[in-house]
Amino acid sequence: MKNIRLTLAYDGTHDAGWQVQPEAPTIQGTIEAAITQLTGEQVRIHGSGRTDAGVRALGQVANFQTEATIPLERWRHALNVVLPRDIVIGRAEEVPADFHARYSAKRKTYQYLIHRVFSPFPLPWLRTCTWQMVADPESSGGMAEWDLDLKQMRRAARCLFGKHDFSSFESKSSPDESSVRTVFDVTLDNSPRWAPWSSGGLSHLPPEVISISITADGFLYNMVRSIVGTLVEIGQGRRSRTDMERILNARDRSQAGQTAPPQGLYLVSVEYPER
Amino acid sequence: MKNIRLTLAYDGTHDAGWQVQPEAPTIQGTIEAAITQLTGEQVRIHGSGRTDAGVRALGQVANFQTEATIPLERWRHALNVVLPRDIVIGRAEEVPADFHARYSAKRKTYQYLIHRVFSPFPLPWLRTCTWQMVADPESSGGMAEWDLDLKQMRRAARCLFGKHDFSSFESKSSPDESSVRTVFDVTLDNSPRWAPWSSGGLSHLPPEVISISITADGFLYNMVRSIVGTLVEIGQGRRSRTDMERILNARDRSQAGQTAPPQGLYLVSVEYPER
Repeated sequence: MKNIRLTLAYDGTHDAGWQVQPEAPTIQGTIEAAITQLTGEQVRIHGSGRTDAGVRALGQVANFQTEATIPLERWRHALNVVLPRDIVIGRAEEVPADFHARYSAKRKTYQYLIHRVFSPFPLPWLRTCTWQMVADPESSGGMAEWDLDLKQMRRAARCLFGKHDFSSFESKSSPDESSVRTVFDVTLDNSPRWAPWSSGGLSHLPPEVISISITADGFLYNMVRSIVGTLVEIGQGRRSRTDMERILNARDRSQAGQTAPPQGLYLVSVEYPER
Repeated sequence: MKNIRLTLAYDGTHDAGWQVQPEAPTIQGTIEAAITQLTGEQVRIHGSGRTDAGVRALGQVANFQTEATIPLERWRHALNVVLPRDIVIGRAEEVPADFHARYSAKRKTYQYLIHRVFSPFPLPWLRTCTWQMVADPESSGGMAEWDLDLKQMRRAARCLFGKHDFSSFESKSSPDESSVRTVFDVTLDNSPRWAPWSSGGLSHLPPEVISISITADGFLYNMVRSIVGTLVEIGQGRRSRTDMERILNARDRSQAGQTAPPQGLYLVSVEYPER
């Protein structure tokens, strides 16, 4: 019996998220079916964590046990041939029997992308892979929403570092499980403008990408999206910078801001202890 | 009777292109159906030109005649409510009766995006909106494909400026129509790296965007895509820089390079004479 670890990317737009569901296509279900098609085995594949519908992954990690005799170096290509094009295997490795993608994980990094578009409308082809904030230059009030004060957002995010009870940023908490997590890093970047549409058309200014990356030992349900939603309200001036710490200490989900939409969220990487 | 001009953006991924077809969804057909839904009128909408399946537009222009009494300032919003989310109206204006989106057009600009991804696989969520060139760091030979010599490509593109017979870059030429077009501008940009995935995961280097913009008084069928395909072969060193001029002068489609895939192509803007 071999234990195979996969590192993979996917676009969750057309799936009902990672976890197998009886009546909807899922990432997990699609990969399990692909393995069955190659080997004839019924397998269970374990992901490092579940991602919701509409969330993408660049470096998701998963593992499964197999008795198939497919040589290790063939797995990646064989799976990519069978899988639909919105799921891509980047790496397949054999790992020790006790490796488990979820329980062995040490750190995860999520990234959230906000696209600021100074134009009367969102860019239709980016609507499934970023949260677009549109400012219509012809309408009043649009600019206020668009203008995010990154400095205030960075300052507000500082209180998240370290070990805290993150109940205020958890949807559907379960009373049996701890809401304590350790955040190692929060980075807000104002990426150099991505200029592919700068030369004309209706986009008066090129779009601009703001990314918010969070690394932690684990994440509660909707934790990144509710942190991002709250930070955006601070950036827009609708909440004060010091609200962040007050919300964190309240341990009450109703105190936090909106949950940012799934299409801005990326699971970037999962780290494991070195052997 | 009013003549209404629309400026619009769309993601052509789920449509069979601009032009109405009997059995497939098209941009033109979808907008005509939306106008009918709002006004009860059967209209014909004229685009500045056809775009193929999978090609997006940021600033497509179209016009139609209507007797509807909808106030001008309501058209944009009313259409956006009725249209699917992958077509967005940016502007609606009343124009003189003799304005025709296609025949009145003076210049058009197309932009082609190449995404260079230094990673074992393409980014699944960008596969419908850029041409991704993937270099797998684990495989030999991948890097050669990835490395485009922009300087050579820029030099090669110089011969395209001005008035020429572009038959060599035309698919399905029709003997009755002229293949002469005037190119006003060709710009190759190596955009600042778009860094949203730079912080980790499998992407060893962040992706990089190369854009090729061409402005002309009109374009032949597949002209931008076959010019881009040829320039890429020059950038890869598979053809010499001087091949471009030789191909142009040959007036023979079989001399040119591959036709670049549709998902990299954007209709950016259409210009009309000022009134």
